[in-house]
Amino acid sequence: MHTVVIVGAGFGGLQCARALAHRPVQVVLLDRNNYHLFTPLLYQVASSLLDPSDIAYPVRSVFRRVPNVRFRQAEVVGVDFDRRIVLTAAGPEESYDDLVLATGASINLFDQPDLEHSAYHITTLPNALELRNRVLACFEAAAVERDEEARRPWLTFVIVGAGPTGVEYSGALAELVRLIAGRDYPTIPRDSVRIILLEGGDRVLPPFRASLGHHARRRLEALGVEVRTASLVESVTDRRVVLRDAEVIAARTLVWAAGVKPNTLETGANLPRVPSGRIEVDRYLRVSGVHAVFAIGDAAGSVESGRELPMLSAPAMQQGRRVARNILRELRGDPPVPFRYQDRGIMATIGRHAAVAQVGAVSFRGLAGWIVWLVVHLYFIIGFRNRITVLIGWAWNYVFYDRPIRFVLSAAHRKANSE
Amino acid sequence: MHTVVIVGAGFGGLQCARALAHRPVQVVLLDRNNYHLFTPLLYQVASSLLDPSDIAYPVRSVFRRVPNVRFRQAEVVGVDFDRRIVLTAAGPEESYDDLVLATGASINLFDQPDLEHSAYHITTLPNALELRNRVLACFEAAAVERDEEARRPWLTFVIVGAGPTGVEYSGALAELVRLIAGRDYPTIPRDSVRIILLEGGDRVLPPFRASLGHHARRRLEALGVEVRTASLVESVTDRRVVLRDAEVIAARTLVWAAGVKPNTLETGANLPRVPSGRIEVDRYLRVSGVHAVFAIGDAAGSVESGRELPMLSAPAMQQGRRVARNILRELRGDPPVPFRYQDRGIMATIGRHAAVAQVGAVSFRGLAGWIVWLVVHLYFIIGFRNRITVLIGWAWNYVFYDRPIRFVLSAAHRKANSE
Repeated sequence: MHTVVIVGAGFGGLQCARALAHRPVQVVLLDRNNYHLFTPLLYQVASSLLDPSDIAYPVRSVFRRVPNVRFRQAEVVGVDFDRRIVLTAAGPEESYDDLVLATGASINLFDQPDLEHSAYHITTLPNALELRNRVLACFEAAAVERDEEARRPWLTFVIVGAGPTGVEYSGALAELVRLIAGRDYPTIPRDSVRIILLEGGDRVLPPFRASLGHHARRRLEALGVEVRTASLVESVTDRRVVLRDAEVIAARTLVWAAGVKPNTLETGANLPRVPSGRIEVDRYLRVSGVHAVFAIGDAAGSVESGRELPMLSAPAMQQGRRVARNILRELRGDPPVPFRYQDRGIMATIGRHAAVAQVGAVSFRGLAGWIVWLVVHLYFIIGFRNRITVLIGWAWNYVFYDRPIRFVLSAAHRKANSE
Repeated sequence: MHTVVIVGAGFGGLQCARALAHRPVQVVLLDRNNYHLFTPLLYQVASSLLDPSDIAYPVRSVFRRVPNVRFRQAEVVGVDFDRRIVLTAAGPEESYDDLVLATGASINLFDQPDLEHSAYHITTLPNALELRNRVLACFEAAAVERDEEARRPWLTFVIVGAGPTGVEYSGALAELVRLIAGRDYPTIPRDSVRIILLEGGDRVLPPFRASLGHHARRRLEALGVEVRTASLVESVTDRRVVLRDAEVIAARTLVWAAGVKPNTLETGANLPRVPSGRIEVDRYLRVSGVHAVFAIGDAAGSVESGRELPMLSAPAMQQGRRVARNILRELRGDPPVPFRYQDRGIMATIGRHAAVAQVGAVSFRGLAGWIVWLVVHLYFIIGFRNRITVLIGWAWNYVFYDRPIRFVLSAAHRKANSE
């Protein structure tokens, strides 16, 4: 049977596989993790509001009753485009008739070794958990540090990048601090904790219209976040952050939320790329120069009206469905349909019950924005059980203003034995 | 003020601190983790049924409104009994007037290096998660292994020790396998998975009366678990388990549930110990030979009617309360009251809706046992929110027979930067 191999079970890859379910093709879905991650809520795991299982869902469960979709947890290490074979780090290779690259993006540290050494981020479940543990560990360290000057860096958190992730995490962190400083940590007054949000550009939430950016900034400041625009990081150590203008911030925790870059896949062949590093595709999302290969989502440099599509879940999902339909059309002998992005808007939440949302010409902010945000996110979270538990968690948080998930979970390290 | 330092926030230490809350003493509660762990349900985390946060609760939250109890996350590295000082791995030392050692127990690998290298266990949250990940990783590996002989060891799970932990985990694992084999993993038939429970003694659940042990064995066998008594492990590698009678079981996963041993604490002074390694205490739970030091729970070799008390939460909690009350009595000039254990029974669950419980002369088994088990466990789980989510999780599992928490969460490894 015609075999479609999809690399990556993020929003794009998962939608593509779903659109091919129960159709006359064999689908092989590969991902290095065995779960699909609802990344828009990752900052809530990082700020002790949600559990990992609230936003992660086993891919195999999604396709349990779908005989023509086979999932496999595997690290893809290369593609042989001539032999039409996908190579994996362990286990057999996979042959394809059509290949969909949905390999996503990861944190962009701009090749700065000091960032690689010191920065925390919010791009994967393990690193979100690591950041969650880190913040609590800083509070524990500060609680026993009697020297004021040595204590301050433990309680200073610098977030770099005021895009949606940086804004959402700053707001959530400010509320976590409000909850624990002076309460769980009676010797740490709230105002001894500093949260500094740095943005290189001239305003908060650059992809949103200016009025919403201003609103978000005011909300963050009301939560106690120091927002600084036109502020660039020069260097970072474990103890301090040095800004381009030579100011030194004594801080032990830096969260890097200043952008992601597309994951590259070693293929031997040099796939054509747009300047941002994403794979160049035509309007059918086909990769130029190779046969029967598509790229979607963050991996694909899809251009519309002269602008690259943003790295968001919405275009990835739409592209996944488009590619799936075009593969089926081609099998039937029908011509493919070009991809066209339906922009349904963008949104970001700021703290417990405020958000900004921009849907076409309409803006929402404050509580109205938050309700729009809540409905949309609950709707999209995969899996009914998850939706219920997430809702309960939020309701609990909203009513009782408590976050019971604040424990430091260190990981056991096992060297051998896993193969 | 009179200062009581409690080392360990398990069942004993936590109860001791609670009994001293709002009393005229200063309490310092130390634990290496910032959470209290409901260990009786750890096997459910290990078998993808519960989330870590369902059974872990931040200690600071417990004492948030208790000004005289100060919690500190710290690794205790020693005690200077002469100067009455507790030494920690980082941060200041703690002075005490009374010291309560509630240091608990950890897995007993009997100093076998092959076990240390290869065995999984269910004693801490990280190692329970590691086991959860392991089982799923084995299924992933088996799913792509086409060679039948190479595949079998991935699907053979050996559990050593048929005490409550071994029995409960075997049952839970059997039900997890029932759920995923043939469904999430369509190429892995249920009967290709082997779960082997080995017990060195002559029957299952040695602490229970024989009829309940027999019942548990029949239930496990009905779930597909191979139960072997009088069976001892000789050696273990990553690929096989060799038994004392020279039989070789090709298995890649061994779960060691054959006992725990008391944690030792380097103190310089040689504390007197009973043969099992627990600290020798008098009937007031005072450690002989040192002044103003108590030991409780798994750490203490408390003897009643000539028998050492079992390492269970019930005696630990009762001892914690007894020590707290005696400290308060002494401050008032009253004589201390000797500790007497109130045995309220023991219980173990086998799979989804069966359990055995032994309360005095009364036995419960099957569904009745399970209901007793459920009520008791829900009652004792700390924290209202946890009780609700755990109940929802169980109800979900009971009604829909699904476990949505089956994802492999690998931990990020960070070398430096944590101070």
